[in-house]
Amino acid sequence: MAGTFITLEGIDGCGKTTQAKLLTEAFRRTGAEVVALREPGGTQISEKIRALLLDRANAEMCSECELLLYEASRAQLVREVIEPALARGAMVVCDRFYDSTYAYQHGGRGLDEALVNTCNQLGSCGLAPTCTVVFDLDPTTALLRATKGGADRLEAEGIAFQQRIRDAYLRLAAKEPARVEVVDGTGTPEEVYERLVAALADLIPAPLRSEA
Amino acid sequence: MAGTFITLEGIDGCGKTTQAKLLTEAFRRTGAEVVALREPGGTQISEKIRALLLDRANAEMCSECELLLYEASRAQLVREVIEPALARGAMVVCDRFYDSTYAYQHGGRGLDEALVNTCNQLGSCGLAPTCTVVFDLDPTTALLRATKGGADRLEAEGIAFQQRIRDAYLRLAAKEPARVEVVDGTGTPEEVYERLVAALADLIPAPLRSEA
Repeated sequence: MAGTFITLEGIDGCGKTTQAKLLTEAFRRTGAEVVALREPGGTQISEKIRALLLDRANAEMCSECELLLYEASRAQLVREVIEPALARGAMVVCDRFYDSTYAYQHGGRGLDEALVNTCNQLGSCGLAPTCTVVFDLDPTTALLRATKGGADRLEAEGIAFQQRIRDAYLRLAAKEPARVEVVDGTGTPEEVYERLVAALADLIPAPLRSEA
Repeated sequence: MAGTFITLEGIDGCGKTTQAKLLTEAFRRTGAEVVALREPGGTQISEKIRALLLDRANAEMCSECELLLYEASRAQLVREVIEPALARGAMVVCDRFYDSTYAYQHGGRGLDEALVNTCNQLGSCGLAPTCTVVFDLDPTTALLRATKGGADRLEAEGIAFQQRIRDAYLRLAAKEPARVEVVDGTGTPEEVYERLVAALADLIPAPLRSEA
């Protein structure tokens, strides 16, 4: 594929959505085509699946169903949007991708690691990010940020759940150091963005680096 | 598990829905607890997934997304309904189960066989039917039956597609003869039902057999 595929990861409230926006705007100022996405979602079908996943009325959803819905939403996003964008040479910035499934479904909910990895292969249609940034933050700090706008079903599950997710992200970064970068998520958005740009130095055009 | 899990399979219009109804009513007359289900569906969440799958507005759905949605719907049905029913000792009669995914997604749409089998393991949470009956019928005859009430997205794909599905069912029956029985689907519902009862002789209580 001609393009570059960057995914941003971390526990709820780690700041990745803000960083995705800053990064996307900076890339666009260089004249590059940037496709900014969030998971689950990003296509008409994927957004319908997202609505099922986040609806508190579906609290009786079993963990296997939840896992498979995330993967279904992802497969549609990969085939309909990400693969065509990368083929055009675009920069794709995705707020969450399959590492979220690893961290939340395996780390958070305790689903079998091999099962989650198999599902991730299926849902991503075999596509791996060029680079993944994990914004690392203490769950208490992150939860306070995340719940400002009201908690959804996932965010209501609390600190211990988020801590297991954080641990899973850090294990993943240790296992795949060539792909996964950990960035300290504390401080102001500007401070975090400076660290993000430094972490992505190899992928970022020189003019963008000098703006940071 | 204490109960018995019977699944009914075949191409669109093969008559399995009618046979599921006849079989369920006959079991109920013996005083047994019978749980009658259809796939995709059978739980509140699974029915919402069914609506996504059958909606013609979602025609751009990629084959991986479709596969994973079927499995998500199935996992919820297994965990929420089928496993508890079998644990109580009930008879579960399901109109379609994972063999439909094998026949439609692998046979019909050409998805990789190993991939579909892996997904079926995930979506069924490892649960296999006690016995599976495939109602075998010529696709032209079956399509005429199925489209009487108006064609949905799947039924509109035509005869060649249904023929590949039929072939996949027959391959499956050859591969798993201990579990999968093929029943001739031609003739009146009463004629087919007689063949069904004969095929299920080992699983059916004597009073039920004599009624047929």
